[in-house]
This record gives sequence, C-alpha cells and structure tokens, in this order.
Amino acid sequence: MKILLIGHSGTIGSAIHQLLTQRGHEVVTAARDGGDITVDISDHDSVRQMFESTGTVDAVVAAAGHTPFVPFAELKHDDFTTGWHGKALCQIDLVLTGAQYIAEGGSFTLTTGILAHTPIARGAVTSTVNGAIESFVEAAAAEAGSGIRVNAVSPTAVTESAAKNAPFFPGFTTVPVDEVALAYVRSIEGIESGKVFRVGH
Amino acid sequence: MKILLIGHSGTIGSAIHQLLTQRGHEVVTAARDGGDITVDISDHDSVRQMFESTGTVDAVVAAAGHTPFVPFAELKHDDFTTGWHGKALCQIDLVLTGAQYIAEGGSFTLTTGILAHTPIARGAVTSTVNGAIESFVEAAAAEAGSGIRVNAVSPTAVTESAAKNAPFFPGFTTVPVDEVALAYVRSIEGIESGKVFRVGH
Repeated sequence: MKILLIGHSGTIGSAIHQLLTQRGHEVVTAARDGGDITVDISDHDSVRQMFESTGTVDAVVAAAGHTPFVPFAELKHDDFTTGWHGKALCQIDLVLTGAQYIAEGGSFTLTTGILAHTPIARGAVTSTVNGAIESFVEAAAAEAGSGIRVNAVSPTAVTESAAKNAPFFPGFTTVPVDEVALAYVRSIEGIESGKVFRVGH
Repeated sequence: MKILLIGHSGTIGSAIHQLLTQRGHEVVTAARDGGDITVDISDHDSVRQMFESTGTVDAVVAAAGHTPFVPFAELKHDDFTTGWHGKALCQIDLVLTGAQYIAEGGSFTLTTGILAHTPIARGAVTSTVNGAIESFVEAAAAEAGSGIRVNAVSPTAVTESAAKNAPFFPGFTTVPVDEVALAYVRSIEGIESGKVFRVGH
C-alpha cells in the first residue's frame, strides 16, 4: 500500500515507519522538517498541498500532535485551545481534507492516548482533546461512507519514553513501542472502522 | 444553595430552573439576553465579570451551547472550531474561571449528550465536542482538588423537542425533560464528582 505517515520521527512514529516498511508498504513521510513532504498540519492550506503532492493514498497515519501540560490551578482557557489546534483539529482536518484523496476502502488512523479516560496530573488538556479525537473517529467512520475507514490508536505510556514520562505515570505499566506500532498495522491492513485500539490499557 | 444557571430559557434549561426553584434553591440566571446577569460565555472577560457579580456560589450549571450540524461531506475544519468554542471551550472556561468563586464542596455541572458515543447524520461536530467535554470532566474532577466537584449530564433526545429533532434520531427513544433536570439535581445536591450522568441512554 501507499501510506502517508505524518510524524515519522517521534518514538511512536519511527516505530510505525520501520514496521510499515518491513511489511513492504511504500511509506511517504510528511513533517515540519525532514520528511519526504514538508507540512504544517495546523495549517489547512499546507494540508491540502500535502495531499495534492501525494495524490491518492491507501492509508493516512497521524502520529503527530502537541498539547500543553499544565497544573490544573494554572490552566488558562487558551491552553485548551492550543491543545485543540495542536492535536485534535489538525488530525480531524487530515480526515476532512484527505477524504478526497483516499483510495476506496482506505483508512485514516489517528492518535489518541490513555489520558482520554485516565486523568494524570497536568493532563487535563490532553485528556480533553483525546476525548474529542475518540468521539470524532466514531462519528466520522459512521458518516463518511463505506469507502473510508477511520480509527485511532490509544497507547498507554510507552516503555521507551519511560525515562522522561515515568513521574507523570506513577504505578502505570508501560507498553513497548513495537506493540503500539502493531495497532496501526491492524487499522491499516484490517477491515475495522470507527474503533479506538487501546494498547497496554 | 445559591446556584448560577447559564442557559435558563431552553427546553432543558427552563426545566432545570423550575425544578431547582421548587426545591428551594436561590437560582441566579445568566444568559445573552433575559437573565439576571448578561453574559457571553464564549468571551472570557464576560465570564469573569459574571462571576465577579455573583460572588461565591454553591453550584454552577451550564445548559447552554451551540454546535453546527452539517453533513459529513460538506464539513469544513472551521465547523469543528465553531463547535469547540460554542459548546466545549465555553463550558471548560466556566470551570477554570469559576473555580475561584465556588464554595467548598461546590459543583460544576456541564452539559454533553448522547452523541458523544452515538453517531447520527450531521452530528460529527457535536459528537467531537461532547467527547471533549466528557473527558474534561473526568480530568478536571481528579485534579481540581477535593473542594470542587465537576460532572456532566448527557441526555438522549428530549421528548419535548421530538417534533423538531425526530428526523435526526430515527428509532431512538426519548426522555421527558423533567428526568433530564433531575440529573442536574443529583450532580448539585449529591457528592459525586468526575461523572457523566447519562439520561435515557
């Protein structure tokens, strides 16, 4: 398959990239820097240009996104809008815009995470936008039509990031990033739609 | 209790108003037009001024919010941001800003709805922002501290609105608005926090 991967350089994105390549797929990477295509997924025009340069693809994978982590007492409403644009709206726009470029039966696989339904300190913005992504996936899959599949992967804390993240996930088990990458394969190569694939939780 | 009710004139809001008054509460209404206080909850400064004029309250109830209903194929990414501001961020800001004005043990009760986890035609924006609200409630309740409770009410389609809404909810049972209003009482007078009270689904 020809697969567009947005965010191929992070811990999860690079594992996805490696696994998809091993499985014989043609992976086109898109990122702010260093991808086959340069894109700012928070910019709608940039997203459209990206799809114009790829043409039809069989799958789109989003493994990019940024949300602020701020203690609740210090949160401003602007932090939530930063998170909305940084992780939710940009992934939603990939589906809305990409729907015109996806092959029949092709898939979109977005990235959410355990915080959607598991609070941690400083995590309220991420929880909120992850919840938005999960509900979007279910709604979009139902209404987009039979030719388009939409799923999300929801990892718990990743083992390879534990040195950085462990203080925020006390008592949480972690999951090896290779297991997270497998969930994207399930979404891409399988037939499911409207699903949130939880990994490690 | 002294209860600030934002959105007292809609089908659900007026039922909440009537029930809370019957139960002996002092209800202060806030709305764009016709409330005790004039407020635009999409405007952070207006929200702050509202709380400055109420002073300390025992409960805040939000029964206001607007989201666009658009067929999936016609959706623009801006529709999602309209919904984000119109129903999610404004309710989130009520909690962030109101946290400084809520009495010890006081509650915030937000409004989500069945679409968070049930797709209907034209409902993708509403599903998405409802999902955000539900995850926010859980995260905020966990991190805001023991003195503040945060819940949401999730009604299915309301019987009294069926003449208008029935085409969008084929085969759905409806729930009388008085049952929906009871869920707000449970949030306000009870001890629960971080909960989404589903009514009729």
